[in-house]
Parts: sequence; structure tokens; C-alpha cells
Amino acid sequence: MLLRLQKGLLAEQVEAVLALARELGYRTRFLDERSEILLLDGAGRPEHRSKFEDLASVKSVLDAGDARERHERDGRADTVVRVGDARFGGGFVSLIAGPCAVEDGDRLVDIAREVQRLGATLLRGGAWKPRTSPYSFQGLRAEGLARLAEAKAATGIGIVTEVLDPRDIAAIGEVADMFQIGARSMTNSTLLVEVGRTKKPVLLKRGLQASVREFLLAAEFILAQGNTQVVLCERGIRGFDTTTRNLLDVGAVAHLKRATHLPVIVDPSHAAGRSELVRPLARAGLAAGADGLIVEVHPDPSEVHSDGSQAVSPETFAQIVADSLVIAALDEKRVVLPEPVRATR
Amino acid sequence: MLLRLQKGLLAEQVEAVLALARELGYRTRFLDERSEILLLDGAGRPEHRSKFEDLASVKSVLDAGDARERHERDGRADTVVRVGDARFGGGFVSLIAGPCAVEDGDRLVDIAREVQRLGATLLRGGAWKPRTSPYSFQGLRAEGLARLAEAKAATGIGIVTEVLDPRDIAAIGEVADMFQIGARSMTNSTLLVEVGRTKKPVLLKRGLQASVREFLLAAEFILAQGNTQVVLCERGIRGFDTTTRNLLDVGAVAHLKRATHLPVIVDPSHAAGRSELVRPLARAGLAAGADGLIVEVHPDPSEVHSDGSQAVSPETFAQIVADSLVIAALDEKRVVLPEPVRATR
Amino acid sequence: MLLRLQKGLLAEQVEAVLALARELGYRTRFLDERSEILLLDGAGRPEHRSKFEDLASVKSVLDAGDARERHERDGRADTVVRVGDARFGGGFVSLIAGPCAVEDGDRLVDIAREVQRLGATLLRGGAWKPRTSPYSFQGLRAEGLARLAEAKAATGIGIVTEVLDPRDIAAIGEVADMFQIGARSMTNSTLLVEVGRTKKPVLLKRGLQASVREFLLAAEFILAQGNTQVVLCERGIRGFDTTTRNLLDVGAVAHLKRATHLPVIVDPSHAAGRSELVRPLARAGLAAGADGLIVEVHPDPSEVHSDGSQAVSPETFAQIVADSLVIAALDEKRVVLPEPVRATR
Amino acid sequence: MLLRLQKGLLAEQVEAVLALARELGYRTRFLDERSEILLLDGAGRPEHRSKFEDLASVKSVLDAGDARERHERDGRADTVVRVGDARFGGGFVSLIAGPCAVEDGDRLVDIAREVQRLGATLLRGGAWKPRTSPYSFQGLRAEGLARLAEAKAATGIGIVTEVLDPRDIAAIGEVADMFQIGARSMTNSTLLVEVGRTKKPVLLKRGLQASVREFLLAAEFILAQGNTQVVLCERGIRGFDTTTRNLLDVGAVAHLKRATHLPVIVDPSHAAGRSELVRPLARAGLAAGADGLIVEVHPDPSEVHSDGSQAVSPETFAQIVADSLVIAALDEKRVVLPEPVRATR
Repeated sequence: MLLRLQKGLLAEQVEAVLALARELGYRTRFLDERSEILLLDGAGRPEHRSKFEDLASVKSVLDAGDARERHERDGRADTVVRVGDARFGGGFVSLIAGPCAVEDGDRLVDIAREVQRLGATLLRGGAWKPRTSPYSFQGLRAEGLARLAEAKAATGIGIVTEVLDPRDIAAIGEVADMFQIGARSMTNSTLLVEVGRTKKPVLLKRGLQASVREFLLAAEFILAQGNTQVVLCERGIRGFDTTTRNLLDVGAVAHLKRATHLPVIVDPSHAAGRSELVRPLARAGLAAGADGLIVEVHPDPSEVHSDGSQAVSPETFAQIVADSLVIAALDEKRVVLPEPVRATR
Repeated sequence: MLLRLQKGLLAEQVEAVLALARELGYRTRFLDERSEILLLDGAGRPEHRSKFEDLASVKSVLDAGDARERHERDGRADTVVRVGDARFGGGFVSLIAGPCAVEDGDRLVDIAREVQRLGATLLRGGAWKPRTSPYSFQGLRAEGLARLAEAKAATGIGIVTEVLDPRDIAAIGEVADMFQIGARSMTNSTLLVEVGRTKKPVLLKRGLQASVREFLLAAEFILAQGNTQVVLCERGIRGFDTTTRNLLDVGAVAHLKRATHLPVIVDPSHAAGRSELVRPLARAGLAAGADGLIVEVHPDPSEVHSDGSQAVSPETFAQIVADSLVIAALDEKRVVLPEPVRATR
Repeated sequence: MLLRLQKGLLAEQVEAVLALARELGYRTRFLDERSEILLLDGAGRPEHRSKFEDLASVKSVLDAGDARERHERDGRADTVVRVGDARFGGGFVSLIAGPCAVEDGDRLVDIAREVQRLGATLLRGGAWKPRTSPYSFQGLRAEGLARLAEAKAATGIGIVTEVLDPRDIAAIGEVADMFQIGARSMTNSTLLVEVGRTKKPVLLKRGLQASVREFLLAAEFILAQGNTQVVLCERGIRGFDTTTRNLLDVGAVAHLKRATHLPVIVDPSHAAGRSELVRPLARAGLAAGADGLIVEVHPDPSEVHSDGSQAVSPETFAQIVADSLVIAALDEKRVVLPEPVRATR
Repeated sequence: MLLRLQKGLLAEQVEAVLALARELGYRTRFLDERSEILLLDGAGRPEHRSKFEDLASVKSVLDAGDARERHERDGRADTVVRVGDARFGGGFVSLIAGPCAVEDGDRLVDIAREVQRLGATLLRGGAWKPRTSPYSFQGLRAEGLARLAEAKAATGIGIVTEVLDPRDIAAIGEVADMFQIGARSMTNSTLLVEVGRTKKPVLLKRGLQASVREFLLAAEFILAQGNTQVVLCERGIRGFDTTTRNLLDVGAVAHLKRATHLPVIVDPSHAAGRSELVRPLARAGLAAGADGLIVEVHPDPSEVHSDGSQAVSPETFAQIVADSLVIAALDEKRVVLPEPVRATR
């Protein structure tokens, strides 16, 4: 490992850095006269980089050497995350679709059947909804969970749904095949740790404000619990321009595919904020290398109470599926389709 | 209330908006031929604006009329939040100081005595620490809480400490005089609601990427539970330049003092990220109208495991206190000093 | 046109708005009792929206009615911009390639021949380089222009090169088939106006900090001079994360294709800042709907003095061309290839 | 100088770096086995850092050693910039005030007299206005310059006015005592160089999206021409929140005072975008350490054609002057007042 120390440290501040290095089993050597570039020689472990970064006397870790964190690519093959019919990574692309929130009057079984027929292997739908205002619809909660269970029973489709509070993990885990951690919860480390302990697959969304490193360290909270089934989801970050609701960071998608062995998918719906931009953003995400999509689909957007203007119709979703087949083929990836769809193509 | 609807809505989409308006007791009238500007006439309530904003058919609420949310100034006098000796708002300025985290080997009682002697009415110190990496120091937790209790017992100073998980509220509430909700938790609505239910004062920090409206709606989650003791804290937002760690948004401070009756304080330490910039930022925040400061102070920054490079010495804190007296006087505000300090000046 | 005025204006401030409206030939009518929503009835012209937006008393133009600016789609067919063999828009996709700057020792004729052979219809290469530091290489200038002229003479390829100073327009226009206005010059209105007067095609890059509306108004400066041959280029905007150099705003690409009749291309090289991310970003840009690409290509990136790490090899460029054919076909667009290439496929 | 090279360079890429180092007179030595940390020993010059940063093989300049750029503080005393009665830096604070643009019907002589009476030593007022739209008022130009000359003749106040085009430098220099380079022109290097050659004082505004380093390098373009009379102006940068028009970066002000010997002032008017926030932001800027202010003042904001909503009344300006005296005294700085004002206090 190669550290750059702050300038002008006191002797005891330098000694504190050297003491930590010794404690972690490293031999140390300064490379320069001013004692600012410190080489650590020894067997690195995933937790070492953060320990040095935490020291105020360390300006930056110039090179982590072999102290690789658990998410790092480091020559490893893709982790393939399997959830029901779906597979993400390792050359497999899967599509998740469904309404933003499970709502009153929704014919969720019909929606599930429809998106499955068109090519989705997983159904999305929020029972607990994170909201900006206390006066907004907060989700049907237990009642929503029951409807997701019905849709699963009727169609066999796997369920992805959001968990906001660690106390709900057990109940949601009864129905969900994959936990979703939303963008607003990416910094909720208690939740990350407790979801990590379940060993069930996790869809982790990037926070609106999270750097790529912060996003990967959020995944690391889950991985460090021994749960390797993490799918990263880029869903748009906050920028200075409000023409689109968020900025879909396709550069981060391309970078992540190189930096980590975890699969990466894209949520074009939240990035776009307007239904007519969902298809182009879905295509852009896949073209940048994403291993899947999560798309809001609703047969009747006018009925929707949350985020309705970004839901696409089943017809548009069918076009997105068709686009996916072409774009995935550019990288010799395969779009995983649900059984009945495969049968009829 | 005055709404601007989306263009080109279907008749049933327009009818859904009108139905909600009727349900909430409004008479409705379109002002223009294209039925895009809708006037609602009737008695507004705090929750109405969000309900209309949630509808996909509503482009924006042009004017909320008398449907004022609970945080809104709307001609109201300042809410004064009292915590031990401290008072925030209504012409009172108070200072919070202490270490970032409560750590092993800290002589927390000594630090408490020192910052109190210099002018702080409240002691800050994290027992549970929100961290970016699973491998970073996560706080002394229950042990840290015990030390905060000791410092309080020895000096009488009030305690401000962060709560990360709703399940810890009861235990932390035994010691803390004021709950801190950190920037990473501003979007954790479960936590906001449960802290709101306690009726204990809350220091709510602005999320790194939160708009002013999102910040105010986070406060609204607490206010809607009947807890009016909320102090807003601007602590720097994320920008494109990394010269300083965050951007202290003094414009937001000035705006907030006009937009809400809640007190607003500034955290210059997290915004600066470097100790030599803390004093100028503290002064800038007060000059923009803040009702107080929360400052990281540590007698020996080289010992600190988290955020050490931004802690200031007691000497610098003393200068900040002196600055505060001068700047507060520009607005005829009064800096509340702890009893022994007042006695000796 | 529909205006929203500021609240609480004085009578003379309202009268100033009404006077402007009358002067421009509109009948006016307030839609609400508080005189904040003002309807203007009459024949709109491109310049009217800005004139109202300039008034401090006008909060926003809610609807521009038929006062369409020259860049607006408004039902119009795509403008097709033709430059040599290249065509942009109206279902045509063209590729621009070449070195960042024309440099000493470059075999520019060989590069031109190579990128043309692979599929580029236009050669890029800077003779005048906008730089952040006065001590950086500022371009070969007149000498660079001479080399561009040589490359054109030898291969027949069209030339795109940047103009920084209005006083250079005539000399550069002798060689260039298309003027490039760089991101740093997007706000240089004198330059926009004078380039507009030439009637030669212009490649206008989006400023790092420009909103979509500001970008379109920069194009409007050119269009207002009667020059309709403007190609917009999204090249990445500045965000809070430095993982990639800039954020390629694919949402803006998708939006622009709907908002304007002008062609839109993407510069994946400047957005990526690292050569291995150029191909995925090129694909993402086209998948979002771009009508072309401008790519830095250099046979020997190690020789390059500016932006070398983002130049791709001819081999990678060949892959990008192959990708383009597939992605363009998704929208039934056609990639325009130079004559010899078409002959041999 | 200490360089960090890219990983995995080819031998000829490393040799290119070493060759440049030798050419500039440095001895070189790699500090590590992998040849990534390169120490350069020798006499640094201002232009060296940029030359290494330009090389694609150099990841970063870890330490510039004694290759100090001309703007760097490096232990130097403050540069004091004198313009008429005004002095900036070295313990002196000066105030610039006046209308945004010089307009028809303005009684500019009266305004000049009024702001001078209240404490401004320089009059601001745009004759050429940089605008976002081609249809907005672009300034009275030569006619505006004539009015500035009149105001100067009548009152003796110094004139600060913007130059947009190098071809106007001579004419504007006849009237202006200080050239203003606006935020939109900060990247116009031709303009910076030609203004640098005049040796007249320059007020350089930070670009909306410029990092602090980019801002300092823009100043370096002027300094490198031998013109040391540069005043830096922070005027708000672009952020994700539109509550205020721009974000006044008070952290940058505090940092700049440490990083450069050049004076730094603040423009609270453009940052705020709303007149009621101008006074708090003016105070915040001074409290962060600014050496002066530039404030839009207009006796009748309703008449103004550009940026009217951010102009303050003479009464508010008088309060800002009073605040300045108090805040400047915190740092033992002195506010320079015009002669007649000094006489009557």
C-alpha cells in the first residue's frame, strides 16, 4: 500500500500512522526525505484501506496494493446474481418491470402477467414508499405485500420490493425474492448490514448524491456480512439542470463494469422523470454495458398516485425488450427471458 | 391554491384532479381556455400542497394559497427552541461544541468543562457514527453514551448526540437533551417520524444533496407529529469543486430565516473539512443570519480517529465565540452564554 | 403567451409589463384576481419570450404560445446539416474523428486517411486550443491550419476545427468546412454572432455548466443571423463526482431530439477522459438518439501533448463504427460512410 | 517537484516524461519500484507544473515543490490593488456599487453621486452586457461608455466596466479605471491575455462552474503578461438547488485568502438573485475574509431591464456599508471610504 501523508505533521502524528501499520502487519518505509510518501509492505486485507483513510494524518491512499476491498474487480470474473428466472452479470441481462407503488385498485396480477409475457423476469412494486413529504402516499404497506404475494402465486414471477426499516426485513423477506434498497436509504448503514445478514439478493440503488466510491462502499457493507448477491443500480444523480429529473450517469455504469465484479443495472424511469425519455435512457444504459434494467410499467398511467408521469405503457416496454436483445448482442450478452416467452420466440 | 396542470391531459386525468380538489373541500375553476391553470377556492390545510404535487397530472403548485405547511413562516414569529441553557431563534444565538465522536481515551469531562467555560451551552459528541465504509470506526455506542452521561453529570452541560436507528431512540433519549439527525439520515422518514413522537428537541442536518424544499419537508415529518422543537442545520452541500469538502450554503441560511419560523444554525466544521477554514465559515454563517453554530472542538486533533483534520482547538473556539458576540449584535441578537461565563464577563 | 408575474408588484411595475406587451402587439388579460397570471393574445415572434423573461417583474413565462424561438421543434422536420460527405439529422448519422490537437510530428495526412478508411466523413483537429493554463500548449495555430489543409488536399475529407477569436474566422474559414465552437466559448456571444454571419456549418459544444435552455439559446445566437447549419454537441457536463471527467448527459440528448429540429451529436472522448470508457459512451450517446459522434483518435496516444489519455486507437474507432451501424438501425437511421468505405462493404 | 505517473506506462511513455524533466533542468529519481512516484530536483519555474500536468502519462503533480505559479501565496504579502480612491488587499476593503447595466433614462450621474456619498469608491455599470439570449438587451455600448465618462467627470468616482471583446479594450480603457472580466468570459483566454497586456487593474469574476484552480489559472493568464493588478471576485457558482440563483462559495473566499496573494472580493447581488438576500450575503462574504464587495444598487429597481430583482436600494446599500465597517474590524481591516465620506464621519 502507498500512502500520502499530510504535510508538516508532528512526530507523534506520524508515529500514530506507523503504529497502525505495524498493528496491521505491515513493514513501513518512507520514500522521500520529507516523510510524506509512505510505502507499506505486507499482506493487505479488505478493511485496511478504510482504516488508513480514516486517519486525519493520511491525505490519500495513493495505491491500495493488494488490500482489495470485497467489491473490487481485481481480475475476478463477474459475480452472477440469480433471482428466480433472472440472472444478472456473467453475460446475462435481465429485465425488472412493474408499477412504482402497489396501489388500491391496481390489478397487480394482470400487470405481472403482462410484463412477464413481454419479457420481464422480475416484478417490481413498492409496498413501503420512501417519500419527500409526510403528506404524500406512503404505500399500502402490509396490504401491498399481500398483493405482491398474490401476483407471485398467480404467475410465478419473482418479486423485488423496497425495504425501508430493518424491523420490516423478516416480513418483507417472506414475499420478496430480492430486497431493494432505495437511493434515499443507501447511506442507512444499519439497514445495509441487516439486509446483508439475510443472504437474500439485494438491489442497491445509488444515492442521488453518492460518488462511485461511496456507492461501492455501501455495497461493501452488505458484502462484509457474507452476502455476495448484490446488484448495483444506477438511477440518475442530481445535477444542476432540471431538464431531466436526474442525470443518468452512463459513465459510472461503464466504469463500474471495470471496477467491480458485481452486476450493474440501470433504472431509466427515475432518471428520466418523463415517460417519453424512458426508452432512450434504457437503451443508453444497456449500450454503456448495464446487465439489466428496472422499468416502471403501468397499463394506465393516469391512475397512478406516485411518479405516474414516468411510467411507460406495456407497448413501450415491449419496444425496450426488443432493443435490449439487439444491444446485449453487441457484447455477446444474452437477455434472460421468462420461460413462456422463450418458448414462443 | 393555484395549480398548473400538464399540457394535453385526457378528460379522465383532469377529472382525477378535480375529484381530489372536491374531496378536500375546494371549489374549482379553470382560468384559461386550455384548462391548464386551475384555481382552487377553499380552506387550505398543511397536507394539501403535497397531495396535489403527487399527482402526475399536476405540473406545479403555482401558489399554495392558505394551504400553509407547518414549517412556513407565513408571518409567524420565530419558534424559540430551548435545550438546557441554550436557546435558538427569537433573537437568541447558542453555540454547540465538542468532539466529532466520543472516543477511547478522550477526557470528555475535561472537554465539556473547557467548551462550557469558553461559551458553549451544549456539548456535541457522537456515540453512534454514520460512516461511509464498513471498516471505519462506527462509534463507541453504549459506551460512548455512558461517557456523555458522565460529562453531563460533571458539568451540567446539555447533550446533543446523533441517533441513527429508531430502535436506539429510547436509550439515547435517557442521556441526550437534543437528538441529532445527521445529513445521511435526513431522508430516513421512519427515523424522523419516531423522533418527532418523542417531543424532545431535534437538530436536523440538511442532506448533502437536499434542496431547501426537501430539507423543510424533512422537518415537516417531525412537525407533523406535534414536535415543534426543531432546529435546522446547514452543514455544507455537495458541489463540483473539492477545494473545500462541502459548500456552506449561506444563501440557504438567509433564505430559510425568511421562509420558516424554525431556528437555523450552521456547522462550519463539516463544510470546511479543514480546521483553518472553520473560523471564517462560522463567521460567514452567523453573518448570513444563523441562530447558532455547532463546532467540532478537540484539545488534541492528532488523536482523533474521525474527521480530525477539521476539529479546531479550544483557542480557535474562543475566537469564534468572540466573533459571534460582534456579529450577533449586528442584528440585535444575543449570544446565550452558560451561567459561569456570563458571571465572569 | 402566458406569464406569471412576481407577487406584490407596484402598479407601475405591472404597467411596464403591459406596455411591453402592447408594444409587441399583444392584447392582455389577467386571469386571476391578484393579477399574477397574465394572458397575452396575438402573433408571437421568436424574440418575444426573452424580452418578457428579461423583465424583473416577470417570474416566468408559463407558456410561450406561438412565440417560438428559431431552434424549437414545434412540429418541424429535422434540419439536415451537410458538410462535405457528412450529413447530420433527418435520419443520417455521421462520424467525425481525428486528433485532439494538430501537433508537431503528427502524420496528419496518415491519420486522415486512416479514419476516413474506417468510416469518418470529417476530420477533427485543433489548431487553436483553448487551455486552462497559460503555460499549456496553445496549439500550432497557423501552422496547424496549414496541416489541416494538407490533409484535406490529400484525402478530400472535410475539416472541423475550433475557432476561439472572431478575428480568426476568415483565415480558419479558408480551410475549415465546419467551425467548432468549444465548450469554453459557448457563452462568447460575439463569436457566436460572427460565426453565424458566415453561413458555414457550425458544431456548437455545450458548455460544462450550461443548462439545456442556455445551450439552445447559444444556438439561437447563430440561427438569428440566418445561419441554420448548426449541429449541437453534448460533451459531458460538470458534476460532483470525478470518477469520470465529465458526465455525459444522455437525458439531454434524448430531450434535445424532441425539443429542437437541429441535429445533436455526442463527444464521448471529453466526457470520458479515459480511453477505455470512450466506446461505451459513444454507444450510449447513439442509443439515446444522437445523430453522430466526434471521437478523438490517434495512432500513438503516447505522443500526444493534450488530452492523450482519452484518445482511442484506430482499432477501437473501427469497433465504434461497427456499433454505430447496429444502434442507428434501431431507429431506422443510416450511418453516412465516406465513398471508398461504402464501395467495399 | 513530485509527480505521480499513470500505472502501467510503456517505456517510451516514461521516457517522454523524463525527457521533459531534463529539458526543464531537473534531475529525476523514481522513489518506488514500480516507477510511479517521480521526484524532480532542480529550480522550478511558474510554468513547469502545467507542463507536467499536460502530459497524459502524469496522473497528478503531488507537490509542485518550488515551481510556484505567479498567483501563489507562498509566504508573500498581500498584493494591494489600487484603483482611484479604492484599495483592495493588504488590510484594505473597498466597495463598488452601481447599476447592473447603464440604461436609457438612467440618471447615472445621480446614482454615482449617491453611491459615492454612501461609501462606494468605484462605480459599476455595464455598457456591453453578456446575455444568454440574442433577444435580450445587449447594453447601450458606446453610448453607455459615454454616460460612464460623464458620471466620472461629474463625481471623480472610478469606473469598473465589463469588456467582452478584445477589440473593445482600447475604447473601454479610455473611460474605465478597472476592466471587469465577467463570469461568462473567464475561459476566454484571448481576452485575458490582451487585458493583461494593458497593465490596467482587472476585476476577474469566477466562472459559474470554475473550480478554484481553474479560477486561479485564469488569473495566471493575466499575471503572466506582467499585469499584477488583479482582483478576484467570487460571485456564486452553479449548484443543484435553485432556491437562490447561485451558491455564494464562502469557503472558496476563505481558501483563496490563504492560497493567493491577490485580493478577493464578493458579488452578493448575482449570487442572491433576489434583492432581500443581498445584504446577508454581502455580510457573509466579508465575514469569510473578502477584501471588498461589488453590489448592484439602483434607486428605482422597477425601471431596470436586466437583473432588476437583485438590485438593492440606496438605503440597503447604506446598511451594507455600516455592516462592512463592523465586520472588517474583526480582522483589523479598514474600509476605504471616498474622500467626502471620510470628511463627514
